[in-house]
Amino acid sequence: MSTLEPVLSHLDANLDKSLERLFELLKIKSISTDPAYKADCRKAAEWLVEDLKSIGFDASVRDTPGHPMVVAHHDGAEQSAPHVLFYGHYDVQPVDPLNLWENDPFAPAIKDMGEGRKIITGRGSSDDKGQLMTFVEACRAYKAVHGNLPCRITILFEGEEESGSPSLKPFLETHADELKADFALVCDTSMWDRETPAITVGLRGMVAEEITVKAANRDLHSGFFGGAAANPIRILSRILADLHDETGRVTLPGFYDGVEETPTQILQTWEGLGRTAENFLGKIGLSIPSGEKGRSVLELTWARPTAEVNGITGGYTGEGFKTVIAAEASAKVSFRLVHKQDPAKVRAAFRDFVNARVPADCTVEFHAHGGSPAIQLPYDLPIITKAKDALSDEWSKQTVLIAGGGSIPIVGDFQTMLGMASLLVGFALEDDRIHSPNEKYELQSFHKGQRSWARILAALAKK
Amino acid sequence: MSTLEPVLSHLDANLDKSLERLFELLKIKSISTDPAYKADCRKAAEWLVEDLKSIGFDASVRDTPGHPMVVAHHDGAEQSAPHVLFYGHYDVQPVDPLNLWENDPFAPAIKDMGEGRKIITGRGSSDDKGQLMTFVEACRAYKAVHGNLPCRITILFEGEEESGSPSLKPFLETHADELKADFALVCDTSMWDRETPAITVGLRGMVAEEITVKAANRDLHSGFFGGAAANPIRILSRILADLHDETGRVTLPGFYDGVEETPTQILQTWEGLGRTAENFLGKIGLSIPSGEKGRSVLELTWARPTAEVNGITGGYTGEGFKTVIAAEASAKVSFRLVHKQDPAKVRAAFRDFVNARVPADCTVEFHAHGGSPAIQLPYDLPIITKAKDALSDEWSKQTVLIAGGGSIPIVGDFQTMLGMASLLVGFALEDDRIHSPNEKYELQSFHKGQRSWARILAALAKK
Repeated sequence: MSTLEPVLSHLDANLDKSLERLFELLKIKSISTDPAYKADCRKAAEWLVEDLKSIGFDASVRDTPGHPMVVAHHDGAEQSAPHVLFYGHYDVQPVDPLNLWENDPFAPAIKDMGEGRKIITGRGSSDDKGQLMTFVEACRAYKAVHGNLPCRITILFEGEEESGSPSLKPFLETHADELKADFALVCDTSMWDRETPAITVGLRGMVAEEITVKAANRDLHSGFFGGAAANPIRILSRILADLHDETGRVTLPGFYDGVEETPTQILQTWEGLGRTAENFLGKIGLSIPSGEKGRSVLELTWARPTAEVNGITGGYTGEGFKTVIAAEASAKVSFRLVHKQDPAKVRAAFRDFVNARVPADCTVEFHAHGGSPAIQLPYDLPIITKAKDALSDEWSKQTVLIAGGGSIPIVGDFQTMLGMASLLVGFALEDDRIHSPNEKYELQSFHKGQRSWARILAALAKK
Repeated sequence: MSTLEPVLSHLDANLDKSLERLFELLKIKSISTDPAYKADCRKAAEWLVEDLKSIGFDASVRDTPGHPMVVAHHDGAEQSAPHVLFYGHYDVQPVDPLNLWENDPFAPAIKDMGEGRKIITGRGSSDDKGQLMTFVEACRAYKAVHGNLPCRITILFEGEEESGSPSLKPFLETHADELKADFALVCDTSMWDRETPAITVGLRGMVAEEITVKAANRDLHSGFFGGAAANPIRILSRILADLHDETGRVTLPGFYDGVEETPTQILQTWEGLGRTAENFLGKIGLSIPSGEKGRSVLELTWARPTAEVNGITGGYTGEGFKTVIAAEASAKVSFRLVHKQDPAKVRAAFRDFVNARVPADCTVEFHAHGGSPAIQLPYDLPIITKAKDALSDEWSKQTVLIAGGGSIPIVGDFQTMLGMASLLVGFALEDDRIHSPNEKYELQSFHKGQRSWARILAALAKK
């Protein structure tokens, strides 16, 4: 604790200065999807490089075909400490509709909400400028207090996260040696709630597939052909209905290969979070979990795989009625994967399943729309235990190990391209209105986020 | 035969004159859907009134909110003979694309196709001016030879058949007493083939229904909610898949109430027509009958009820992929009905069936798109036997009693509004290209059609 305490004190003492720096960054309109803000994106990258240099990082702007990356390196005090890669993104979402903002999205401010609660307003305050600066400030404080960082740190800031990250994979490929570390730290997720810190240890993967069932060589009149000619919508409906059994399980042969049962202890902590079918589904107007019977909504969305139909179309879908038998019908089907499920095997099993249900005089076309395995860190991985304890200390509340229902592409890319696991720690809240008007970040998130990272870095550096 | 033979001879001798009259009518551009031809439609009605007057009919143009009707009356020689209502329509389909016509659509001509086959070219030559004039010429010949008609005849010519018949039902309602006869004769159907005359004795009815399954109160992200939230496309697929069992039968409780088995003798004549699954389905690129197992394609399309999905839509259906769980999904479902199936009962059974399959936290909306019972005349009805024999005599080939897979609205209206069965006899051929460029009518159809009606009228007048 002797090395950590002065760092935490430094962070407390310098909160206002750290806010000034954050505000400088928030004022830069780095909207990556809109070409009109190309120069602003570069300006944000350059601002970060200068800031990192001021801490002592070897930082530089790296051009890509799109918006530039920021890469920075700093050695650590402990040779035996792990080398970590910190990831964040400096680009932000567009701000329209502007008239719904209570404050100028690019004129950040502190707003007192009463009862000791203050928020930082502005586009990017939470996603992800506020979050990434919590880590930068922790580094700055360490350097100011101890003249060094507790471990070797590489930083990667992206400028295209909000526009599909087109340059990311090529960049990781070309710079694999430079960016490879022992593991990654990613600050782009949320806490469980206002008081409870969380580490995201699982993210579901996905297989997306489009199928088109083709029957007759043209649309038919159902009076003339109905009863004799195959109807592709009926064939498709049968396929989709067959995908689940009565208990909500997916019926694809081998689908559950690689799916693990979540440890009872973890299930119990999830149980304790109080997310019920009623309060989770109630806000979207539903009440009955639709997935596998006998599992909680948290387990269903965090640790169980799914098969969903995301779109379907066929025949006449306009106003009124046409008695047509369509020539074809198609559906977009996706599978959320968990644990060690193999996307390629799931895709192949699905195609076999479909082929077996298409009559001999009809055909089916498949179109793959991408697939990625799930991410699942062992709940008892040492870095998780260390980060968990550090966060629990800072927030005076047990950290929960949670999972995410959807994928975070960068985490998959770090895993598959750099062989690197990611520790997902973030201080956003569900009500931060990211991507929407009136985005905000809790001042507490910004302050205790800095302190949390200082604690995590100290814990990671310990043998 | 003493009264019939001279009528047939008169028709033979006056074929050229009957063609001149038909050509006059075919030259009138009575396209009912296009307001630009409103005056032409009236002109066609007036031409028919004058022509019917020349035969001795009490004929008049009757205004409607749309194009006028033609109504004509003539007493018959035999008091004991039935009173018949003949129906046809003088309006025609548009002619575009005009560049695909080999001849001017409104400059009718006789074209020699070689091997003794001649055709009448032009829009309306088959549908329905050529067909309706076969009946008018039979009346004319009877009157010329015998000074009277063999039975009391009322004629109704409509001018809006090709544009949805908006004025027909109100007109039938207002003129029910004037138009009601013992039965109707309708000349708007086809022969089985070039040599084989046919009477259509059955027409399938229909129930059309649109259903919309609603789940969450907004579209959801499948990563966040997938596995917990109900997916309306999955619910809809299950409903649609459940509509049929493994043998192709419709599973709605009570669905087959009122469905009769077709007499073996009729099935045998259908068998003899040589329409196989291969040649019927082959031309649309299929080969395997999709309906109830163990029944021929003719029975499936003529005498068995169906459940078809005519359209389906839900979720994301554009390019690429979106991992959305839709708030709602909908399908257009129709049932073809036969014999005595009750449309109201089928609709109610379907709604019960759907309701039973919608989870308690989801809802479903129903939207009725009309329904009509099937038309089915007994195969041994006396007027059918008489007309069948008359046609067999004329064509020197056994008349087949066939059915239609779809409805002909006028036949349903005559049945439900005037309590009148319809005898459907026509001389069109499948290759007449009605509604398409290069419509034609076989000269043989026009000539032998006139002779057929003369024979049928004579047969109906006989005790």
